[in-house]
Amino acid sequence: MGLRLFDSLASTEPLADLFSDAAMLAAMLRFEASLARVEARLGQIPASAAAAIERAADPAAFDSSAIARAARSSGTITQPLVEMLRARVRETDPDASTFVHWGATSQDVSDTALMLCLARAADVLASDHERLASSLKRLSDDHAATVMLARTLMQPAPPITFGLKAAGWYGAVSRSGARLTAAFRDACVLQFGGASGTLAFLGAQGPAVAEALARELDLRLPDAPWHSQRDRLATFVSSCGVYVGSLGKIARDVSLLMQFEVAEAAEPGGGSSTMPHKRNPAGCAVALAAATRVPGLVASFLSGITQEHERGVGNWHAEATTIVSVVQSAGAALAAVAGVIETLRVDAVRMRANIAATGGLVFAERVMMLLAPKIGREAAGRHIKEAMQAADRDRQSFVTALAAIPEVSAALSATELISLESPEAYLGSAEEFRQRLLNDE
Amino acid sequence: MGLRLFDSLASTEPLADLFSDAAMLAAMLRFEASLARVEARLGQIPASAAAAIERAADPAAFDSSAIARAARSSGTITQPLVEMLRARVRETDPDASTFVHWGATSQDVSDTALMLCLARAADVLASDHERLASSLKRLSDDHAATVMLARTLMQPAPPITFGLKAAGWYGAVSRSGARLTAAFRDACVLQFGGASGTLAFLGAQGPAVAEALARELDLRLPDAPWHSQRDRLATFVSSCGVYVGSLGKIARDVSLLMQFEVAEAAEPGGGSSTMPHKRNPAGCAVALAAATRVPGLVASFLSGITQEHERGVGNWHAEATTIVSVVQSAGAALAAVAGVIETLRVDAVRMRANIAATGGLVFAERVMMLLAPKIGREAAGRHIKEAMQAADRDRQSFVTALAAIPEVSAALSATELISLESPEAYLGSAEEFRQRLLNDE
Amino acid sequence: MGLRLFDSLASTEPLADLFSDAAMLAAMLRFEASLARVEARLGQIPASAAAAIERAADPAAFDSSAIARAARSSGTITQPLVEMLRARVRETDPDASTFVHWGATSQDVSDTALMLCLARAADVLASDHERLASSLKRLSDDHAATVMLARTLMQPAPPITFGLKAAGWYGAVSRSGARLTAAFRDACVLQFGGASGTLAFLGAQGPAVAEALARELDLRLPDAPWHSQRDRLATFVSSCGVYVGSLGKIARDVSLLMQFEVAEAAEPGGGSSTMPHKRNPAGCAVALAAATRVPGLVASFLSGITQEHERGVGNWHAEATTIVSVVQSAGAALAAVAGVIETLRVDAVRMRANIAATGGLVFAERVMMLLAPKIGREAAGRHIKEAMQAADRDRQSFVTALAAIPEVSAALSATELISLESPEAYLGSAEEFRQRLLNDE
Amino acid sequence: MGLRLFDSLASTEPLADLFSDAAMLAAMLRFEASLARVEARLGQIPASAAAAIERAADPAAFDSSAIARAARSSGTITQPLVEMLRARVRETDPDASTFVHWGATSQDVSDTALMLCLARAADVLASDHERLASSLKRLSDDHAATVMLARTLMQPAPPITFGLKAAGWYGAVSRSGARLTAAFRDACVLQFGGASGTLAFLGAQGPAVAEALARELDLRLPDAPWHSQRDRLATFVSSCGVYVGSLGKIARDVSLLMQFEVAEAAEPGGGSSTMPHKRNPAGCAVALAAATRVPGLVASFLSGITQEHERGVGNWHAEATTIVSVVQSAGAALAAVAGVIETLRVDAVRMRANIAATGGLVFAERVMMLLAPKIGREAAGRHIKEAMQAADRDRQSFVTALAAIPEVSAALSATELISLESPEAYLGSAEEFRQRLLNDE
Repeated sequence: MGLRLFDSLASTEPLADLFSDAAMLAAMLRFEASLARVEARLGQIPASAAAAIERAADPAAFDSSAIARAARSSGTITQPLVEMLRARVRETDPDASTFVHWGATSQDVSDTALMLCLARAADVLASDHERLASSLKRLSDDHAATVMLARTLMQPAPPITFGLKAAGWYGAVSRSGARLTAAFRDACVLQFGGASGTLAFLGAQGPAVAEALARELDLRLPDAPWHSQRDRLATFVSSCGVYVGSLGKIARDVSLLMQFEVAEAAEPGGGSSTMPHKRNPAGCAVALAAATRVPGLVASFLSGITQEHERGVGNWHAEATTIVSVVQSAGAALAAVAGVIETLRVDAVRMRANIAATGGLVFAERVMMLLAPKIGREAAGRHIKEAMQAADRDRQSFVTALAAIPEVSAALSATELISLESPEAYLGSAEEFRQRLLNDE
Repeated sequence: MGLRLFDSLASTEPLADLFSDAAMLAAMLRFEASLARVEARLGQIPASAAAAIERAADPAAFDSSAIARAARSSGTITQPLVEMLRARVRETDPDASTFVHWGATSQDVSDTALMLCLARAADVLASDHERLASSLKRLSDDHAATVMLARTLMQPAPPITFGLKAAGWYGAVSRSGARLTAAFRDACVLQFGGASGTLAFLGAQGPAVAEALARELDLRLPDAPWHSQRDRLATFVSSCGVYVGSLGKIARDVSLLMQFEVAEAAEPGGGSSTMPHKRNPAGCAVALAAATRVPGLVASFLSGITQEHERGVGNWHAEATTIVSVVQSAGAALAAVAGVIETLRVDAVRMRANIAATGGLVFAERVMMLLAPKIGREAAGRHIKEAMQAADRDRQSFVTALAAIPEVSAALSATELISLESPEAYLGSAEEFRQRLLNDE
Repeated sequence: MGLRLFDSLASTEPLADLFSDAAMLAAMLRFEASLARVEARLGQIPASAAAAIERAADPAAFDSSAIARAARSSGTITQPLVEMLRARVRETDPDASTFVHWGATSQDVSDTALMLCLARAADVLASDHERLASSLKRLSDDHAATVMLARTLMQPAPPITFGLKAAGWYGAVSRSGARLTAAFRDACVLQFGGASGTLAFLGAQGPAVAEALARELDLRLPDAPWHSQRDRLATFVSSCGVYVGSLGKIARDVSLLMQFEVAEAAEPGGGSSTMPHKRNPAGCAVALAAATRVPGLVASFLSGITQEHERGVGNWHAEATTIVSVVQSAGAALAAVAGVIETLRVDAVRMRANIAATGGLVFAERVMMLLAPKIGREAAGRHIKEAMQAADRDRQSFVTALAAIPEVSAALSATELISLESPEAYLGSAEEFRQRLLNDE
Repeated sequence: MGLRLFDSLASTEPLADLFSDAAMLAAMLRFEASLARVEARLGQIPASAAAAIERAADPAAFDSSAIARAARSSGTITQPLVEMLRARVRETDPDASTFVHWGATSQDVSDTALMLCLARAADVLASDHERLASSLKRLSDDHAATVMLARTLMQPAPPITFGLKAAGWYGAVSRSGARLTAAFRDACVLQFGGASGTLAFLGAQGPAVAEALARELDLRLPDAPWHSQRDRLATFVSSCGVYVGSLGKIARDVSLLMQFEVAEAAEPGGGSSTMPHKRNPAGCAVALAAATRVPGLVASFLSGITQEHERGVGNWHAEATTIVSVVQSAGAALAAVAGVIETLRVDAVRMRANIAATGGLVFAERVMMLLAPKIGREAAGRHIKEAMQAADRDRQSFVTALAAIPEVSAALSATELISLESPEAYLGSAEEFRQRLLNDE
């Protein structure tokens, strides 16, 4: 059914589909059919029952709205689904209906179905992540020598390269992405424990059924059921939170660079419904919206971990909505930032001009570095201040004003003075750090 | 389109409908049509244009999925909607298309449309709240004299009445409900400021149009546009958070009372997919799920308040999803708790039995109160401890053991000793507090 | 003991003092002494006992570190304090020691002591709030006619006045402040319920003692004890959250205006440890730090509301730290923003220059407004685009380029054309909205 | 200065010391002294200057309160510290004062000092973690055969062993602990980038100085400075969140088992200030308090990741307080839970009695498993319901009632009937899962 209006900026179409009613229904029925198939194979239930269950487990035959409605009185979507499935099996094979959901508990079905959906989402995100990572690398390489202002507390600071900035983005996204991939892998495991997490219903064959079921569903098998131990999912949700933060950081920077008064980089952006001239940072907005929303969702998830005994009351029931929101938000932010970076227009001329516009002030630190060892920090500081005031008063450059101070011109060589306002002369280890950040393999 | 599977416990059908694509679309088009009507009336646009716009603003003619899709590139759902509306108007009256969305900005439409949806949700919640409040009052009155254990840190404490407990629930829900009602009223105001919040597009007539538009939409008119000042909405969202907490507190208590080992009260609950004997506190689970999820959503909202200049980038875009989740969660929790209270079975016999089962220990405090002024706190404490050990060792009641201690029997009258284990004799001001809590008018 | 290093930006000295160990100790002992005094007056305990307790309740005689240490094993700071108090009383008057803490429970003491501290914090915040509110009013009045760019999604939009922007800040801070004041008043009530919230220990005199105690402590008396109903505190904490958000919004705007490339307003700010030229927005940073931290703290508080039965396990114990952090953060943000506004330098010339620097583009909307009714929206849009491109290509102003288009010069009067780039001509209702925002009485 | 009253349950004494003013001051001065030493060694500054700086960098000579106070105007604690250090150096060696803080920026000092404190906290936590992990293993082994009720949604379910429950606790704590250890290691890296993160001040020697400095401080060297990329710290904070959740889960279970009506396990607990008989789950309360508070703190941290350009404004300034709270809370919860587990009294008799008290109802699932394949699910369900009602009506056991139904006694063997209420006969794979959970190496 696609994206909803209220979620349009908080998901993407592919992710809306992966967690749609149809997808969840299919995943739940896949669990029930696979369970029956596996149990028949292991002699737990009759083969004919498994066949009947598989036939009946056709998503098209189920009304997800009716299930959602009924869920409110049973506290789970599994129970009404199982009842409907049982009724459908009974129509064609009354004996087989006994073996529907054999040995499983509601949570086994809904947890595992969610994991099946998550595993597919992992692929979607991985592909967009690759796209973003390689764009960032390319962007950084293209601008290895493009100088720009650093900005700390949003005030100008000595120059960096745009290549270093992009490499910083890459480094964070890359680390966060690796953690997210690991968290996806750890979290996407089978849930199968029966009523109390002991698989007692299956006698001695519980582990064998579990193993076969995991293989059938292409999920990893955990050491034990995890009905009320949610640390793996919590780690996954948190990893999404950090990942979204790293994406949001890129969007924050781009949206600041895109200000009319800065104009150093811009995404193509979206138009305005009222202002013909306007280009809005729409991609950045989507990513920053996710970065605004997701931290609270992580808190929601974490505060539900302390689940009672063998199945929590309420805290477990709170999870699915949160997980889906978090994954969809992450996917939305990722797609948006990938788009922003792929189409980013960088204005290297303006970057250099913005350095120049500070009138050399951002090189005051460099002057301090050169002067202080020779004439002492305090004298150096006094002259810098003096030059700043002179530059301001006489509308001349900071360097010119500096050179006019005898103590300064005596202490600095002509080469030093000439290069003072050259950004390239004061980049330090920018290029070394850039390369280290990109060479993460 | 009803409830979705993943949100089935996090909303209700009526609230799913109130925030459905159809509802939001209708609200946005109502804004546009009302704006045109009002502007025509005030001479800002031709009457024929208003008529054409009203005709075109038929929700059935719009494809909400296409709008949701397009929103991702413009960063707002309004812009694609306005373009589609303009195109529809152009088909029948090209001149009129000029006056679509005349003087408004995207945010005016989506903010106001959300307020229109919220105002309707306020009615739904108010009605369920009334139902809950009166059930709680009745429950409290019915059990004004039903004694039960107080429990502090989940350990037995001197008795209270179930009537007092229910009155405590009532008091909190009632206060939180009053705050929520006030917050709904404060938040549901018109948004109308045009591109920069000055209504400059409408010349001198901005305020007149705004006033007429508010009346047309049955929303209150704020003192000024509030594009990037979100404190009213933040207060509303927080009030939902407190309200859900007060509901969750009821659910927490009921789910604890419903434990098999306690068995003092129970909701009818839901069945289990696997355990034939099981009654699950499904209503409590829904409310506690909301109480688990909503606090994080409140944080998400609050952390987005610091919006940049005249319209935020990202933080504003994060809001709608959060607001809808919060309101739907509140409604889901409210409906669930109302159901729980209306059908709650209270076992007064078991309540009294659970007091008795403590063997008088919860009256130790009362013994202290009676003995200490006569023989001193330390001696009293010594005798209480002694009696506790004797009771435990000799499997007799705490009172019997106490009476066997000469210093105690000398200090306490027969009447005092006899009434020692009578819960009714140690209820303090339970009834007075109960009545004060219920008499909140 | 003053501010700690790690909290130096998250509190102020006065607020550090108000919640210091000394302050909390004094408040707890004031509770115990007042309780004894009141109970003696009402004949519940001997007058001599009350006198002995008052004498012993001297904060200087208590070791707060020892109490803090002991609290970890009893789960509350009250219990070790009461034991120490009892021991001190016993030294001088053994009989009196029986009547220490008579009828109270631990939570009565720690909750009420916290309320006493909060009530004093309310005064500190109220005074800073007044300072801020009047500075904002003055700032707005001073700049009623100072034109500047509006910025939506951080992109230039048609002009506003700086007076309107400041009035928007005032409006939000003023509304949030009023809510906070109300929440302080509602929350700062006596806690006094005894073991189970019935005051059973005091027989029939519970309410009388409570009333007298409230008067003695200058706190309001609630309808009933509220040991496990925390909605009033939750509302208070949330109100702090919204208030901090409104302060953070000001800091966000100022820090953006203070960018070197924008340079429209600046706080004096702080220096850098390394860059001699640097002025950092240190006041804004303090406020934004609070706005970053507090939303999560609100979530922490809200997620603890669902407290078990008559006293929660853990959730109650989590509260005090959170409340103190929230109030101190609010106070820190408030003091910082008040300082920023009082010393804000506004550069009206630069504001106008920044409008001009857009080359008239922000008036494109106005051109649309003037042209569209005459030649239709599409034609108007076409000409605007054409003029934008010409302006860009030929390095002329947007208005000059527009005037060169025959259809445009035919449709617009000379007066209209001449005034096109006059910000004053396109301020709409900025002044009316400004005055409405300031006239909130 | 030890624990503060308001934080007494939210930290421990060792952790209060590790993040005290003294500790932070020492760490910051250690940074400055180490930097000077390393720079002298590499020829960046005179050896005599380094010696003078080391001499001056004596924590005892600094007034942390004055620094905290001054921090509010500079926005960082480093700046006033550096100024004081410079002044002290100047007193003894004016030339040397030039080389204080040579090439570093404020954030280098405060970030790295925090990392130094964190690294020491890691050791404290690791040691308590080992203690807890081995206690849990022992507890699980001791109770491998201790049967008890499983409880789902707090309702009785088929039996498990207490050994399995403890193994589940172990598994989660163990996984979460491993993640936390990894996160500590990843996060505790040197911060050293100078004003803009390029170490330009040090010319070509930046990386060499950084490497030597890291070695000197015994911190790992990251690939590049990370002034505004906070993903490692965010992962660390989140890992604390998950860890605290896993601890809170144990506390939740123990506090539920400790209810008077359940009485299956108990921590020694703390006493009450008013009720002589009371044992409160004080250890559980501390852990649950952390689990209530920390999720919001994680959100606070995550919402600050999107830091502007090369140093954030406000979001960075919000971090330290949050990190310290999170680590201290984690340590407090850990110490508390370790204490609870080490001293836990388990009542195996009561556990078995509580199973028996359900009258066989929790074995209804087993009856279904045995009967359904023989007589069909529906007939089986009917008979189970019938037997439940008969048991209730005639006050007989569920099994007796079952055996009286001819269809049931015909379908089940005598052995099956006799063993029906034997918990040991229906434990499924409890022991296998238990062993897998414990064998995590």
